[in-house]
Amino acid sequence: MIAEILSTGDEVRSGALVDSNSAYIAEALEEVGLEVTRHSTVGDDLDAIASIIKEIGARADVSVVTGGLGPTTDDITAEAAALAAGTELCEDDTALLSIENFFKKRQRLMNPLNRKQALLPKGSKCLENPAGTAPGFAVRIENCLFFFLPGVPSEMKKMLSEKVIPEITALWGGHREYSLVRNISTFGLTEAAVNENLLSVIDDYPDIRLGLRATFPEIHVKLYGRGKDEKKVSGLLESATGRVLEKLGNRVISTIGEPMELVVSRLLKNKKATLSVAESCTGGLVSNMLTNIPGSSDYFLFSGVTYSNESKIKLLGVQQSVIEKYGAVHEETAKEMAVCVRRITGATYGLSTSGIAGPSGGTDEKPVGTICIGLATPVEVKGFRFVFQFGDRLMNKKVFAVTALDLLRRELL
Amino acid sequence: MIAEILSTGDEVRSGALVDSNSAYIAEALEEVGLEVTRHSTVGDDLDAIASIIKEIGARADVSVVTGGLGPTTDDITAEAAALAAGTELCEDDTALLSIENFFKKRQRLMNPLNRKQALLPKGSKCLENPAGTAPGFAVRIENCLFFFLPGVPSEMKKMLSEKVIPEITALWGGHREYSLVRNISTFGLTEAAVNENLLSVIDDYPDIRLGLRATFPEIHVKLYGRGKDEKKVSGLLESATGRVLEKLGNRVISTIGEPMELVVSRLLKNKKATLSVAESCTGGLVSNMLTNIPGSSDYFLFSGVTYSNESKIKLLGVQQSVIEKYGAVHEETAKEMAVCVRRITGATYGLSTSGIAGPSGGTDEKPVGTICIGLATPVEVKGFRFVFQFGDRLMNKKVFAVTALDLLRRELL
Repeated sequence: MIAEILSTGDEVRSGALVDSNSAYIAEALEEVGLEVTRHSTVGDDLDAIASIIKEIGARADVSVVTGGLGPTTDDITAEAAALAAGTELCEDDTALLSIENFFKKRQRLMNPLNRKQALLPKGSKCLENPAGTAPGFAVRIENCLFFFLPGVPSEMKKMLSEKVIPEITALWGGHREYSLVRNISTFGLTEAAVNENLLSVIDDYPDIRLGLRATFPEIHVKLYGRGKDEKKVSGLLESATGRVLEKLGNRVISTIGEPMELVVSRLLKNKKATLSVAESCTGGLVSNMLTNIPGSSDYFLFSGVTYSNESKIKLLGVQQSVIEKYGAVHEETAKEMAVCVRRITGATYGLSTSGIAGPSGGTDEKPVGTICIGLATPVEVKGFRFVFQFGDRLMNKKVFAVTALDLLRRELL
Repeated sequence: MIAEILSTGDEVRSGALVDSNSAYIAEALEEVGLEVTRHSTVGDDLDAIASIIKEIGARADVSVVTGGLGPTTDDITAEAAALAAGTELCEDDTALLSIENFFKKRQRLMNPLNRKQALLPKGSKCLENPAGTAPGFAVRIENCLFFFLPGVPSEMKKMLSEKVIPEITALWGGHREYSLVRNISTFGLTEAAVNENLLSVIDDYPDIRLGLRATFPEIHVKLYGRGKDEKKVSGLLESATGRVLEKLGNRVISTIGEPMELVVSRLLKNKKATLSVAESCTGGLVSNMLTNIPGSSDYFLFSGVTYSNESKIKLLGVQQSVIEKYGAVHEETAKEMAVCVRRITGATYGLSTSGIAGPSGGTDEKPVGTICIGLATPVEVKGFRFVFQFGDRLMNKKVFAVTALDLLRRELL
């Protein structure tokens, strides 16, 4: 079955916004065995949308369309779909109810503008939106079954997995091919180095496609297998995953694509250990990443974001003499910070960061990209220093934070 | 002049790679006054590429195509362009020389495979690549002038600005149009409410297109103007911006699209004021956002991420009796946290958050989405409570943090 993807909206058309929805949808469709042949993007223009819908209708079996289902005047995708289908818009009861419920649940008054979102092309089936006001809809136009979804990524993703994929799988029936994917998250090697390490795996598994995806600063190794025999594909992927683990060792964070903070959280929970953090250059990022995981209050006690030397001394209890002797950015200072934050909070582990995220503040000896990390455990305290070459403040903060968490991960293993 | 963008390659088609090239090119073309009407993506398939090139040739005046110019067997864009143009590939002297020079300069031997990259469709003009081996080319197919560029972003960007844009501007001659855009960031109203507030602006400025962009939790109002007279377009946008300000008042954060943390940072700097933060439910996000701005050490003193009651009492000095009387999530507790963090750090302002980000921990009285915020200034302390209905931990953290910063922003104004 041939699939096409269409994204609509002036923001993506004009380049103000990068269209990441289409890649996400393409991957999801390919995973259930569809062959995505084309993506297109057009702006908020009635004729442009209607005309491309007709084109796709003549070429594809399935199409997923995003954008233009909001309540405002430039949201015209439903109207364009009706135009392409040669029908008209009608108020859909399910859609209206789902919008009303959205507001009711939140004890808010429904804006009259939102009523427009219940107008769907005649003959279409409403796809309820569990996360927003814009219901989607499915409708057949020419030879193609179209799924219209909102452009807000969080809403689109939910509806894609909960509504669209099950419908497509049902449609597919017994003819489906299985497209399976394994996602192995790694940290600590560049994309080129990961690739080089895995060359023999590519050779030994000709039926498996290997893709590398940088979700900075992690590199995710994706293994794709496809075939009619699900068990066979799955077994092949399992075996290839084993080879990747062999080749990359403890650079592998997770064999199911989990990010660093989730892996560290679970390790802490399993050990019934607690953690406190003293952050300088990461500015709260370590703590923000950890508290993004639900249930983090079980192990996360405290983070002190101590930018100034004064706050390091006064609030963490760092000895002034250590900072004076070594400077704020130094393994010894980082060790002292980790020990202090562990002590004042009674945590099992103390983790600290002190470095230079840039753009200014670098010296020859300690250039921008330098990070010192301290890790205090129940039995010892360790200090580390790394220099990264990304030259970008936000990338530096990110790689500093993930490096600190990675050191804790290795300690917990 | 109508422009279309085409990206080729299995990586973008299958979603393994997000196509950020197309957005970049669209913005660059719109900036010089072209009207980008459509982007398309197809895989490394000869017929698919040739057929879409023909389609574009019939619709557009100009087209920029990326990808498939490399030395390997799946790089087939030049062949597809020749097929679409009804011509054949010939070795191009300029192209061959530029490839040879690339290797000579780097004192490397040219791989025989690279010679293939000098094969261009007959009648096309070589566009030299200053940064890689793949030369681009320009060729007219049907009514459209096509520019073929490599897919590697760094090479594409260089060639776009150095080769393509000058050619288009020359072609455009005195007829060029100016496309200007204003980006007004707002916070505090839903997208529907912003739209409703601005209906009269849309009516009064028929030559200006208004677009809303949700960069959660901010809503950005974008005003687009286009015309031959740059001054006139600019004046019209200025006047419309004034009307938006009138309508939205202090919901407007910035008239140049700046995010909340940048606006707050500047206000603090201008006032030579300092800030300390006590974060509970935002878990370091407020502090992470502020420290993303270079130079934040000028005003940002400290953030204590105090998840537990114990750390609030022991490390911030919050009175146990306040927590016992009101509970951790309460305006009075938030006020006490703000006062304490201001006092222990000597900051001009103390800002605090305490709430329930979810997914669990909500009660009937304090449901998930409840946030209490404290703001201690040199003269007083204020407490606030809001309940948001997003029902998602990360969205709640985000809206909590931005709400806290917005209260500080209003205080600083």
